[in-house]
Amino acid sequence: MTPDATGFADAVRGEAAGWDRRGELPAEVRRAAGAAGLLGVDVPARYGGAGGTPYELGEVCATLGGVCGALRGLVTVQGMVAAALLRWGSAAQRGRWLPALARGESVGAFAATEPGAGTDLAGVETRVDGDGEGPVTVSGVKRWVTFGQVANVFLVLGTAAGRLTCVFVESDRPGVAVEPVTGQLGMRAAQIAHVRFDAVRVPRGNVVASPGFGLSHVAGTALDHGRFTVGWGCVGMAEACLGLAARHAADRTQRGVPLAEHQLVRSSLARAAVDTGAARELCARAARLRQDRDPVALTATMIAKYAAARTAASVSHSAVQILGSAGCEQDNPVSRFFRDAKVMEIIEGSTEVTEMHIAAHVLRDVGARP
Amino acid sequence: MTPDATGFADAVRGEAAGWDRRGELPAEVRRAAGAAGLLGVDVPARYGGAGGTPYELGEVCATLGGVCGALRGLVTVQGMVAAALLRWGSAAQRGRWLPALARGESVGAFAATEPGAGTDLAGVETRVDGDGEGPVTVSGVKRWVTFGQVANVFLVLGTAAGRLTCVFVESDRPGVAVEPVTGQLGMRAAQIAHVRFDAVRVPRGNVVASPGFGLSHVAGTALDHGRFTVGWGCVGMAEACLGLAARHAADRTQRGVPLAEHQLVRSSLARAAVDTGAARELCARAARLRQDRDPVALTATMIAKYAAARTAASVSHSAVQILGSAGCEQDNPVSRFFRDAKVMEIIEGSTEVTEMHIAAHVLRDVGARP
Amino acid sequence: MTPDATGFADAVRGEAAGWDRRGELPAEVRRAAGAAGLLGVDVPARYGGAGGTPYELGEVCATLGGVCGALRGLVTVQGMVAAALLRWGSAAQRGRWLPALARGESVGAFAATEPGAGTDLAGVETRVDGDGEGPVTVSGVKRWVTFGQVANVFLVLGTAAGRLTCVFVESDRPGVAVEPVTGQLGMRAAQIAHVRFDAVRVPRGNVVASPGFGLSHVAGTALDHGRFTVGWGCVGMAEACLGLAARHAADRTQRGVPLAEHQLVRSSLARAAVDTGAARELCARAARLRQDRDPVALTATMIAKYAAARTAASVSHSAVQILGSAGCEQDNPVSRFFRDAKVMEIIEGSTEVTEMHIAAHVLRDVGARP
Amino acid sequence: MTPDATGFADAVRGEAAGWDRRGELPAEVRRAAGAAGLLGVDVPARYGGAGGTPYELGEVCATLGGVCGALRGLVTVQGMVAAALLRWGSAAQRGRWLPALARGESVGAFAATEPGAGTDLAGVETRVDGDGEGPVTVSGVKRWVTFGQVANVFLVLGTAAGRLTCVFVESDRPGVAVEPVTGQLGMRAAQIAHVRFDAVRVPRGNVVASPGFGLSHVAGTALDHGRFTVGWGCVGMAEACLGLAARHAADRTQRGVPLAEHQLVRSSLARAAVDTGAARELCARAARLRQDRDPVALTATMIAKYAAARTAASVSHSAVQILGSAGCEQDNPVSRFFRDAKVMEIIEGSTEVTEMHIAAHVLRDVGARP
Repeated sequence: MTPDATGFADAVRGEAAGWDRRGELPAEVRRAAGAAGLLGVDVPARYGGAGGTPYELGEVCATLGGVCGALRGLVTVQGMVAAALLRWGSAAQRGRWLPALARGESVGAFAATEPGAGTDLAGVETRVDGDGEGPVTVSGVKRWVTFGQVANVFLVLGTAAGRLTCVFVESDRPGVAVEPVTGQLGMRAAQIAHVRFDAVRVPRGNVVASPGFGLSHVAGTALDHGRFTVGWGCVGMAEACLGLAARHAADRTQRGVPLAEHQLVRSSLARAAVDTGAARELCARAARLRQDRDPVALTATMIAKYAAARTAASVSHSAVQILGSAGCEQDNPVSRFFRDAKVMEIIEGSTEVTEMHIAAHVLRDVGARP
Repeated sequence: MTPDATGFADAVRGEAAGWDRRGELPAEVRRAAGAAGLLGVDVPARYGGAGGTPYELGEVCATLGGVCGALRGLVTVQGMVAAALLRWGSAAQRGRWLPALARGESVGAFAATEPGAGTDLAGVETRVDGDGEGPVTVSGVKRWVTFGQVANVFLVLGTAAGRLTCVFVESDRPGVAVEPVTGQLGMRAAQIAHVRFDAVRVPRGNVVASPGFGLSHVAGTALDHGRFTVGWGCVGMAEACLGLAARHAADRTQRGVPLAEHQLVRSSLARAAVDTGAARELCARAARLRQDRDPVALTATMIAKYAAARTAASVSHSAVQILGSAGCEQDNPVSRFFRDAKVMEIIEGSTEVTEMHIAAHVLRDVGARP
Repeated sequence: MTPDATGFADAVRGEAAGWDRRGELPAEVRRAAGAAGLLGVDVPARYGGAGGTPYELGEVCATLGGVCGALRGLVTVQGMVAAALLRWGSAAQRGRWLPALARGESVGAFAATEPGAGTDLAGVETRVDGDGEGPVTVSGVKRWVTFGQVANVFLVLGTAAGRLTCVFVESDRPGVAVEPVTGQLGMRAAQIAHVRFDAVRVPRGNVVASPGFGLSHVAGTALDHGRFTVGWGCVGMAEACLGLAARHAADRTQRGVPLAEHQLVRSSLARAAVDTGAARELCARAARLRQDRDPVALTATMIAKYAAARTAASVSHSAVQILGSAGCEQDNPVSRFFRDAKVMEIIEGSTEVTEMHIAAHVLRDVGARP
Repeated sequence: MTPDATGFADAVRGEAAGWDRRGELPAEVRRAAGAAGLLGVDVPARYGGAGGTPYELGEVCATLGGVCGALRGLVTVQGMVAAALLRWGSAAQRGRWLPALARGESVGAFAATEPGAGTDLAGVETRVDGDGEGPVTVSGVKRWVTFGQVANVFLVLGTAAGRLTCVFVESDRPGVAVEPVTGQLGMRAAQIAHVRFDAVRVPRGNVVASPGFGLSHVAGTALDHGRFTVGWGCVGMAEACLGLAARHAADRTQRGVPLAEHQLVRSSLARAAVDTGAARELCARAARLRQDRDPVALTATMIAKYAAARTAASVSHSAVQILGSAGCEQDNPVSRFFRDAKVMEIIEGSTEVTEMHIAAHVLRDVGARP
């Protein structure tokens, strides 16, 4: 059964501004989201999930994204770790972590970005050392880890003997140091952290990917899943901004004339509606292709995330403009969405990096050499 | 059976530049298109059509639009007249005109625009006079009638006793004067004409709409059909431009380096691909909603046409830019598409007028008074 | 002598992030700016100002705007009040308030916007009551008063007997209630306030404009001055963002390759540079025309503010994108400029309202009726 | 004395559409332009020119550019050749060619672009062979030579012993073959040609640049001059489009309401006016810096051309949209400007190539290594 994202969203809508102000998504909200089945939408029922389709997952992300980017961000990070586990984890690993993640009893975080590496994950310097048999030792620094402040377990991208691998590191192990990031432009309730792993020893059974498969397989699966949910979340953000702007335009009068009577306001609403509708259709296309396990889904997901992030940025910009000073007020959602949306153009593959991937796909289609 | 638009398109692709240069779509091409079933894709088989779905009609328009805007324009005008006939014509009227239109034996043209009225069809001044029983007399001037130079029959929007009505006028009746339009910016092979109706007498049986229903019903059906096919045609135009630009970028080298190696070229291709993909999805959505006879289809079709026309304009602009001087050459398709695409932003509801309609829909969605 | 804005700017540059975080421009900074001559650049020397040209005032605003929007905002509000005083105040009024404003010993604020009126100042409801001889009584609510939290005197736009007038109200008079605005999207150190005037009695000598001249003359002069300084401040903001982005692109490497090697980064820098340069030239044109007391200066100033505000918004957007996650960090200037710049598109005539004014000018030029 | 460009422009304005249709700028118009002093505005009086300033040259180009891109193009090509001669030619060369060019008695053309080289002039393959003493032999193919159909003399960029040089080749020498380019997207009256030099022998005295200085010096001077005049010409084109669109908006009514009453039309006019004004200011800045022989003039000219070409493209696009079907008519100037403007984004340094140059300048400003 598809979880009731709409009911959950309606119940917490009024609290999102406070979460943003305080830089925290309360633990009880995380647990409630888990209990409502929102953190394991596409996880099979046997692992505690709802066994939903990609489209159902997308709709959940859109619905939550229309309330709070950080709340949707929780779905994203849990989902990224879960997707990697489902596809590449051993039976033991799946059994150990998946149900707790899917139910929201545990928070998983994906620790990939490093200082100096940006979106270039191939350049990671975190080391996963070991002799091939006993425990391994994880050493390195990860930045901008979403929900890193409260994560119970990190899926860490590192190198073993110079080749990329992935390993789970529980946050309560000695040597894990978490430094909260606060006051950043957007996604303030996403409890982002920089995380230092100082020779942290973990059992060999925590290693997910064989060396050399860390990026292409495990991280690739996680990132693809992340882009998919971010894209849908951006659709929700844009739809929320459009609705708030239309509502304001309809209600607000100046000398007796509703804002909505002005052609410029109507033009702005129309453009926002067209772009938002297009982003939704591109996300729906990505969902269909994922459902069909079509290999084109990877590029379709990039296109969907790219278009949706740009749309969220432009529509939130238009919404602030239509609301005017009201749109700049501290707790007004469009002000928050405006800040959050900018971040969406940077994370999970920046707009620029994604363009290069999409172009490669276009060129392959005309038979160009790669 | 769906007509083979791809085969037809491939066969005539090399001739489109010549049609544009000479300002003419040859009669034998019109007839061949009819024989191939391309002019009655969504007309029921009992009237000589292919009985296809909206989506199949859309695909035909995209395929032909990728070859020649005027050829796609023929599908549009035949389709507009056929759609109005199918929905609002009497059995006698359908039997008389539909099969010939569907088979391409007859060219139908929609004569709505007038000097001074632009897209504001409510202001038409063409008069349809009569005493309610015998023949009626049609008097007025229509402008920018696509395929007006060769039309066998015009579906004319006029007023009877001050209320809007529609009437068929055969082009060989005394008093019909056709003035060809040549050398215009784009759509040069669409044999556009200004048409003067000088007290043209036609039988009462040629009147389609009761007074007062001309615009909302007959013309509304025709225009909706027109927007649908124009939107899909623009998708085809954008896809063709994208393909030609990618092809050029892959093949063309400067000092041994392919253009496609340049990030700016890749960025341009990626943006074009995303916008084109989005336009296609919006057109596909309109097709689904039409198929389901969902009342939202009307707005969805406006959105699709709006987005696709803007995309064709921007992608053809990018394609000329990537091809550079080659893209400016007389017979290069992107040069022609660049000119044709600009026209798409003006016809069948200009970008600005369409924005107002879309905004009204957005505002209704939030419960604003109309 | 032109004040040394550059020296002042360099000295406080490191503090601006803290001001933004704490929502306060420290009193000692205000006083130091006054002592440095930055708050009365274009005020004649006999009133304690520097007697500078419009261009010199513009450069000061650009320089300070490159450090902190709120600091530039102080120059703007002081300047708006001073400009109104200089042009429309009596000798007694000028002598009483101008020197203290010019030296920064007193903070002046312009109280024009009301709930429900937005940028439509003709609809103000604040009343200035009196019998034509004794003290007047000011009653009303003003919103979004920049530096309203710390202003010593407000220049209030109100209506006397239904006609617009302006009156000075000292902030320590009984009946003045100041409600700070905090946490808004941008301009957080500008100590914005909503201000309530509850039957505040002020001497008749505080009234500046005769009824009927409040908007066209006094407020008009203030707003024109405000747009001029905001425009130049936006140029400074854009130049600062461009410099920070170029610096980052030059310094930051990924796998040994500087960001600046990427064509997309270069393209973004180039576009930002062109737009910023254009905004500067438009502001310089406005300065020349003001210097020459050319009546076109009013429109030229609108154009300059319009272009500069849009440029600041787009260039700060590009800068955050180039800096990536670093650009989202709490104290990174581009993150703050991104938030501040959005506000610039709304205040002192929103982008949309300004377009209507500019268009009216364009149409007058071709002889259209107004 | 500055030539009377305005008078000349007014006299020929009505003929420009015909020139475009026939693909020819009549010889008598070329001669009249020469007689009016328009072809040697910045050539010293002693060489038959008007001895004007860069700003005066710019104004002439804007004025003519507002009538016909090809006419302005004649000023550009004559000016490019003259500028190269003035700066790098010997006294004999100047005396021989400059006066005839300045007076319009002779047409000069700059032959630089080659098949496969595009804007990458460093890759030219045309050879200038000789033994260092006697005549030289020029062999190669040049493309897209503006006014190549009627040029009396070509300034040819080629390589001598592998290093770039420039040489004058009279068009009546054996071995020169001119192939007219017709029907291209825009600039149809500019009598563009592909020119083949088949072992053409010319006296050694025709060689302008020592080997190695052909591109950096002679061609560099010509191209810089070309960008300057193209930029100003684009300003004129944009101003003309703006004026025509405003005129149409003011005059054209729909159901009694002028188009100019629509906010969307006003917004479009306002944006066009701001962009056009900005382009003009950037061109004026380039003129000031040229006048001052400031080395920044080179980059300022690139910025000016870049901004003006983009503005001409966008403003002509808006003008066609405002004029609607009227803007698509064969002889309507905005239709022609729309086609011509696209070409401006490609020639004399495409938008993309120019962005790279501008970015290099921005990066140098922050001290980045080149």
